[in-house]
Amino acid sequence: MKPTDMPKEGAEMTEETEQMIEKNCAKEPENVASPGDAKEMRVVVLTSFGGLNKLRVTKKPMPDPQEGEVKIRVKACGLNFLDLMVRQGNIDNPPKTPLVPGFECSGIVEALGDNTTGFEIGDRVMAFVNYNAWAEVVCTPLDFVYKIPDDMTFTEAAAFSMNFVAAYMMLFEVANLREGMSVLVHSAGGGVGQAVAQLCSTVPNVTLFGTASPCKHEAIKDSVTHLFDRNIDYVPEVKKISPEGVDIVLDCLCGENTGKGLSLLKPLGTYILYGSSNMVTGETKSFFSFAKSWWQVEKVNPIKLYDENKVMAGFSLLNLLFKQGGCSQVKNAVHKLFSLYNEKKIKPLVDSLWALEEVKEAMQRIHDRGNIGKLILDVEKSPTPLMANDSTETSEAGEEEEEHEGDNDNKERMPFIQ
Amino acid sequence: MKPTDMPKEGAEMTEETEQMIEKNCAKEPENVASPGDAKEMRVVVLTSFGGLNKLRVTKKPMPDPQEGEVKIRVKACGLNFLDLMVRQGNIDNPPKTPLVPGFECSGIVEALGDNTTGFEIGDRVMAFVNYNAWAEVVCTPLDFVYKIPDDMTFTEAAAFSMNFVAAYMMLFEVANLREGMSVLVHSAGGGVGQAVAQLCSTVPNVTLFGTASPCKHEAIKDSVTHLFDRNIDYVPEVKKISPEGVDIVLDCLCGENTGKGLSLLKPLGTYILYGSSNMVTGETKSFFSFAKSWWQVEKVNPIKLYDENKVMAGFSLLNLLFKQGGCSQVKNAVHKLFSLYNEKKIKPLVDSLWALEEVKEAMQRIHDRGNIGKLILDVEKSPTPLMANDSTETSEAGEEEEEHEGDNDNKERMPFIQ
Repeated sequence: MKPTDMPKEGAEMTEETEQMIEKNCAKEPENVASPGDAKEMRVVVLTSFGGLNKLRVTKKPMPDPQEGEVKIRVKACGLNFLDLMVRQGNIDNPPKTPLVPGFECSGIVEALGDNTTGFEIGDRVMAFVNYNAWAEVVCTPLDFVYKIPDDMTFTEAAAFSMNFVAAYMMLFEVANLREGMSVLVHSAGGGVGQAVAQLCSTVPNVTLFGTASPCKHEAIKDSVTHLFDRNIDYVPEVKKISPEGVDIVLDCLCGENTGKGLSLLKPLGTYILYGSSNMVTGETKSFFSFAKSWWQVEKVNPIKLYDENKVMAGFSLLNLLFKQGGCSQVKNAVHKLFSLYNEKKIKPLVDSLWALEEVKEAMQRIHDRGNIGKLILDVEKSPTPLMANDSTETSEAGEEEEEHEGDNDNKERMPFIQ
Repeated sequence: MKPTDMPKEGAEMTEETEQMIEKNCAKEPENVASPGDAKEMRVVVLTSFGGLNKLRVTKKPMPDPQEGEVKIRVKACGLNFLDLMVRQGNIDNPPKTPLVPGFECSGIVEALGDNTTGFEIGDRVMAFVNYNAWAEVVCTPLDFVYKIPDDMTFTEAAAFSMNFVAAYMMLFEVANLREGMSVLVHSAGGGVGQAVAQLCSTVPNVTLFGTASPCKHEAIKDSVTHLFDRNIDYVPEVKKISPEGVDIVLDCLCGENTGKGLSLLKPLGTYILYGSSNMVTGETKSFFSFAKSWWQVEKVNPIKLYDENKVMAGFSLLNLLFKQGGCSQVKNAVHKLFSLYNEKKIKPLVDSLWALEEVKEAMQRIHDRGNIGKLILDVEKSPTPLMANDSTETSEAGEEEEEHEGDNDNKERMPFIQ
């Protein structure tokens, strides 16, 4: 990441309308049957990298599908930990702001670009998007769009795409999960963690070790064989139960945990780094955090892996999709997952639904690790009065004010959970 | 490796008989039906770490099987590149000399220790041994012994165990070789290389890239899709044919090749370091070579793997077997390989058979990379006259003389190839 890539705050704001959406302008759920004539759409916009106050709901011109693209009337969007990192600019090569965040959504096909085969208007789909998912309408290349099973709700589909695909590809393609193996996953209560738990349960006799905040243990204890407090050192806890270690370690923590994860592997075991949520600590973070993490992470000598018969891997679904042309590999995983869904072996766990206007509260909840399962932005949902008041309160001064560590951290919030 | 672990040359020689085996004392192949009464056995002994002159054939007391051990009348032993590294002391934590080298053999069960179930006297077996394989009789725990298929010769079995098990576990357990994938293997003409080639051919539509000395290309061209000269940079050659890279890189070269191997991987591809034959350059090598290689090898940042969606692994069959308790994993692989053998889908390729007394010539051949397929020590084979003369020529002065780089390198040899 080059500092020169970073736009100045407030720069390049001209192309978006600055008009805030009034609370009462949110559509009623009953009122969305024929929205195709609108020339504008509601979106969540990140005005510049920083705290929650950089997020707002605004209107943008409705996009038209280009050649090979599918235009989707969005029903639901997924919110991931990664979206927090994007908000903070805490990723490698961040895009320019203002931008519309979000990498996944579900909805109904509304139009097709030229040479866009395989879909029809009215198809129920889920899609990966390289940003711009948190909007009423999304256009994305057909390779990133999948028809969803008839029984799958839009909420489930938006909760499904990134988390289940990542969990599936890590467990079954990067690692090779088989009967009788053991897996360690961090943030076992989160979206990926719960997808991992469900996929592990599709294989006979898999032992799942998980870390999670103690407050979540009661809620997720049936999905994880052995649960540990995320605030304690899990290495001795795992070794007490399984002195020889585990077969697969899924690590979204990074930093010192790579060494810990490798040390916990059985021979031929696989450590997978799939995220770096330890990079997100406060509400805002220096743009150099990613680069700093890079240097702080312990590098590994291949001869150590040879000596110990271990496998070290990294997995980034978004890089695979949008930088590395991995659509066909992902499509293959999606189809296998749909089969498992149709056989009722897996079912996305949704933590809560939020209106677009409630995106700050939703982000705060995922930042505070309050969620169990997936947070969903429900495009048709009206903000609850309390949430809506809260949501618009700080947004007007957003793009001008300086950021403060811990901004918004101390407000008491009671998210609306469905 | 601590220098203090190294015995002085000539130390600890008392427990072995120093008598050299005369050429004419080698048994005739027809004469081995009832050798059970002998109190001594012929072995190859490494008197101290160093050049070829540290190897000799001598006699040692016949071992008795301990509890849980199988006593095997050895017919054939495998010779691996690793044996050269052992001879040079160029491994991590080398054992004390004198020692009997060798990690694999085949033969007939001659006796069983207490509580040794699952075998009967007369069973045809192959076995892994933690040293001591290059002998007329071997005792090893039953977990390392496998009954071989009726159709498999002893020569094939000794050529099979390490190379095919390593190739199988790397391709199918560490990596996840599937239809349509591509693999790069170095030393494609060697024992592992040819095992990899045969196993790749059991999966539809696998593309195999290989490096080998140009003189071997004609002999192995049918087993490898794309062959490159081992003396040129293979990276641009592979990329010319497959710009997006390959799915699996098997690297026995180490050093600078880790970076090269990783750079050649497709997304979700797997790089496996399974040996380090670049460590063996001259005839003898400093004891610190292994440690030096450790530091010279480029360490890899897990975040790089995350960013690029890549997998880096190490595989050491001997560590798995003898240090890490991986017997059951190996047994599983052996059984799958035997099925493939019985289906006539794989068949070990034997380069040449050598008498125990010809071990130096055999080692020279593998050092010079002259072999295509596996070198076998045939315990019942008489040395060919030329070979035998050559073999005993340097051995008497062996444990006293200083080593010289290139010792034996310039002699013209024409190995006896069957």
